[in-house]
Amino acid sequence: MDQQIIFQRLNALLASGRMSEMRGALLMLNPVDIAQYLSSLETENLLRVFRILPGDCSADVFSYMDDEQREKLVSSIGDKEAGLLVENMFVDDAVDFLEEMPAELVRRVLSNVNEEQRHIINRFLSYPDGSAGSIMTIEYCRLPLGTTVAEAMDDIRANGVDKETINTLYIVDANGVLRGTLPLRKLITADDETRVDDLMDVNFVSVQTHDDREKAAELVRKYDLLSLPVVDKSERLVGIVTVDDIMDVIQEETTEDIEIMNALTPSEDTYMKTSVWQLAGNRLPWLALMLFGSILTGLIITHYEGLLLSVPALGVALTACIPMLMDSGGNCGQQTSTLVIRALAVGEMQPSDTPRVLLKEFRVSLLVGAVLSVVNYLLQVLVFGRTWLVAFTVSVAMLATVVLSKCIGCLLPLGAKALKLDPALTATPLITTIVDTCSLILLFEIASVMLKGVA
Amino acid sequence: MDQQIIFQRLNALLASGRMSEMRGALLMLNPVDIAQYLSSLETENLLRVFRILPGDCSADVFSYMDDEQREKLVSSIGDKEAGLLVENMFVDDAVDFLEEMPAELVRRVLSNVNEEQRHIINRFLSYPDGSAGSIMTIEYCRLPLGTTVAEAMDDIRANGVDKETINTLYIVDANGVLRGTLPLRKLITADDETRVDDLMDVNFVSVQTHDDREKAAELVRKYDLLSLPVVDKSERLVGIVTVDDIMDVIQEETTEDIEIMNALTPSEDTYMKTSVWQLAGNRLPWLALMLFGSILTGLIITHYEGLLLSVPALGVALTACIPMLMDSGGNCGQQTSTLVIRALAVGEMQPSDTPRVLLKEFRVSLLVGAVLSVVNYLLQVLVFGRTWLVAFTVSVAMLATVVLSKCIGCLLPLGAKALKLDPALTATPLITTIVDTCSLILLFEIASVMLKGVA
Repeated sequence: MDQQIIFQRLNALLASGRMSEMRGALLMLNPVDIAQYLSSLETENLLRVFRILPGDCSADVFSYMDDEQREKLVSSIGDKEAGLLVENMFVDDAVDFLEEMPAELVRRVLSNVNEEQRHIINRFLSYPDGSAGSIMTIEYCRLPLGTTVAEAMDDIRANGVDKETINTLYIVDANGVLRGTLPLRKLITADDETRVDDLMDVNFVSVQTHDDREKAAELVRKYDLLSLPVVDKSERLVGIVTVDDIMDVIQEETTEDIEIMNALTPSEDTYMKTSVWQLAGNRLPWLALMLFGSILTGLIITHYEGLLLSVPALGVALTACIPMLMDSGGNCGQQTSTLVIRALAVGEMQPSDTPRVLLKEFRVSLLVGAVLSVVNYLLQVLVFGRTWLVAFTVSVAMLATVVLSKCIGCLLPLGAKALKLDPALTATPLITTIVDTCSLILLFEIASVMLKGVA
Repeated sequence: MDQQIIFQRLNALLASGRMSEMRGALLMLNPVDIAQYLSSLETENLLRVFRILPGDCSADVFSYMDDEQREKLVSSIGDKEAGLLVENMFVDDAVDFLEEMPAELVRRVLSNVNEEQRHIINRFLSYPDGSAGSIMTIEYCRLPLGTTVAEAMDDIRANGVDKETINTLYIVDANGVLRGTLPLRKLITADDETRVDDLMDVNFVSVQTHDDREKAAELVRKYDLLSLPVVDKSERLVGIVTVDDIMDVIQEETTEDIEIMNALTPSEDTYMKTSVWQLAGNRLPWLALMLFGSILTGLIITHYEGLLLSVPALGVALTACIPMLMDSGGNCGQQTSTLVIRALAVGEMQPSDTPRVLLKEFRVSLLVGAVLSVVNYLLQVLVFGRTWLVAFTVSVAMLATVVLSKCIGCLLPLGAKALKLDPALTATPLITTIVDTCSLILLFEIASVMLKGVA
């Protein structure tokens, strides 16, 4: 059924106060959809509906709600009830939630959480933002070395329901050091008396708590994992990262890359929830920077005033080419830098490939530049009615601009990567400014030489 | 251990022909890493190493190798051996591989695959590219309604090892219609005599074979799934899509979006493997299109020749502002369209949000435009030494350009989405051309009015 229709029916039940029917209807829905439905309600109704959710489902629904709604809800249900809610959430979800709440609210809620859980949550809250530790969960199955298959199955039957994932089991030694991983499928198909030591995979990959979460994402993607163990500095197992959280990381990191490539300061929140002031603040620094960059272009044009004014009609002819040249140069540079930045981001290219990439871009730019120059020559003569000399001058400037901008477009991000800077930073702002400046100088210098007789 | 060091040791073993030690060393590696190692070898060595891989591992390694290496390998090992390899691969991996091979090779290899498997592969090869059917796998556990937990466990023990995933079981009725899904964890913790009908989740989400694979990706991401059932038009279960394939889909789709947004025709292959001709071909259509677009700007400048020549110094002053205005307009439009396109891609924004987004962008653009105008005014007076009237004229044009370009930047992608076109298409090429044209007309019209006394 269409989600819109479902929500309309729920609203009808809510409006007529048929709350037990409502409870029955909600039982039929996925927690993700219930959370989405709750997001559409005002505080009063939000509370009414949330209270009738089955107990084992409310913590799950709560972890899919957005921060604004969660804050509203927690502020109204009272600290005891909120504490219970947090106790029933998976630790990683609880930490995600608490990180976004005001400090005062966190203090009040946590004082109602049992001591053990509070201790764990506080430890998680101390992992640096963006680290593997900050996105891990501790609800996983760990087994000591020497466990038999039968014992392992008993353990899973007794405790498995509360674990976030039991698809992979983690085998540790007496010191808690991770020694192997065991997919549940291998356990199920093995004999009862076999020891996990003989079944486990010892070639596992893992990350440390303070590693960047991007590293965790890269490993999960490369090795097609469902979960990735997280260890401390002594290789002791402290948690796991699950693939659903990794997908969120990838989406956030990609959005950040795209924003930086397009001259935006990455925003913490979604577009719809970011204020006008914040949006303006994220854009202004870049725009101001680029405005200062384009002073250069203004100064160059003023510098060649003599050339532009010597034969006024010629000056206008050159002026009319400026946007065309600048656009072509900017577009060419942007095309190349986009490909290089993305290839670096997904690990297809390394700084050591620089010579090969540069040679390739040089050859591509000759091809592309040659075609654009010919088209441009024809446009100048046929559309604008310029003399062949002017048309030829502009076409030479076009070829030079294309070659230069493609080479700059690949060298800048590769250079940034080699210097351990974010390659995405070199995209639009820097390249536009450099390419604009170069294309203007090329145009005027080529024109000065070639049109000497005319001017 | 570092991958580089591992590869060096393997190379040393290979060079001295110690193949049994080599075989032992390879046993310690993950198939993903073995595939990467094979990619670094020449055909002869590739074949030598591939042949000593343990039988159950070679199909797995083969599915992680890149197309070029696979083609090399299959052409040299002979059709019988290649047929056996394909038989041992998961169907989705085999299909992925065969789709990229020359038709003649596919025919020869398939003639050596057993009839049942060949039949399935041929059916898969017929699903349209980019559909959910084309990325699904058929190695999953399906159970009839009425199965008991004990029977289900026996079934998994007998057949589970060959399944790509057994984390979720799929329950079908006598007609093969999907009736419910059952996580393995729930099965394991249930009593032997319970029927799967009583345990299964009937609120599952699914896709149809011909649905877009992007839809499958969206569902997996939204509902945090490890696998998603694929059904035919009669709701009969035909396969599942696993989360690792979904991550590849997301990466490919994101790369495609980024390429289109930056005026590139999406490429089939990675940058390093795409030829110079192909790269040039992916870029030229857009560049040529934008070059034709910028004829407009040239024509506009030529049209205002009178204004530019009436007072030559004034003409140069206006000319010197053109790059600055065009850049600011282009950047502003690009910032907004980037945010809107990304928000549409991840489902945070809908075409129905247009009025709210437009109002927000209008307010942001007033803020941003006001700041840029003031900065620009100061630059014109202090750096370029223009009169206050010229500086004021350019600043007014700047404000108008910023407001206009931000509004266009949000309306174009939202409009494209409403018309069921790809919003990414409206990014750079279209917006640059429109914004450039508009900013020039704004500059010259505002200048004509305000500088009437001077000119």
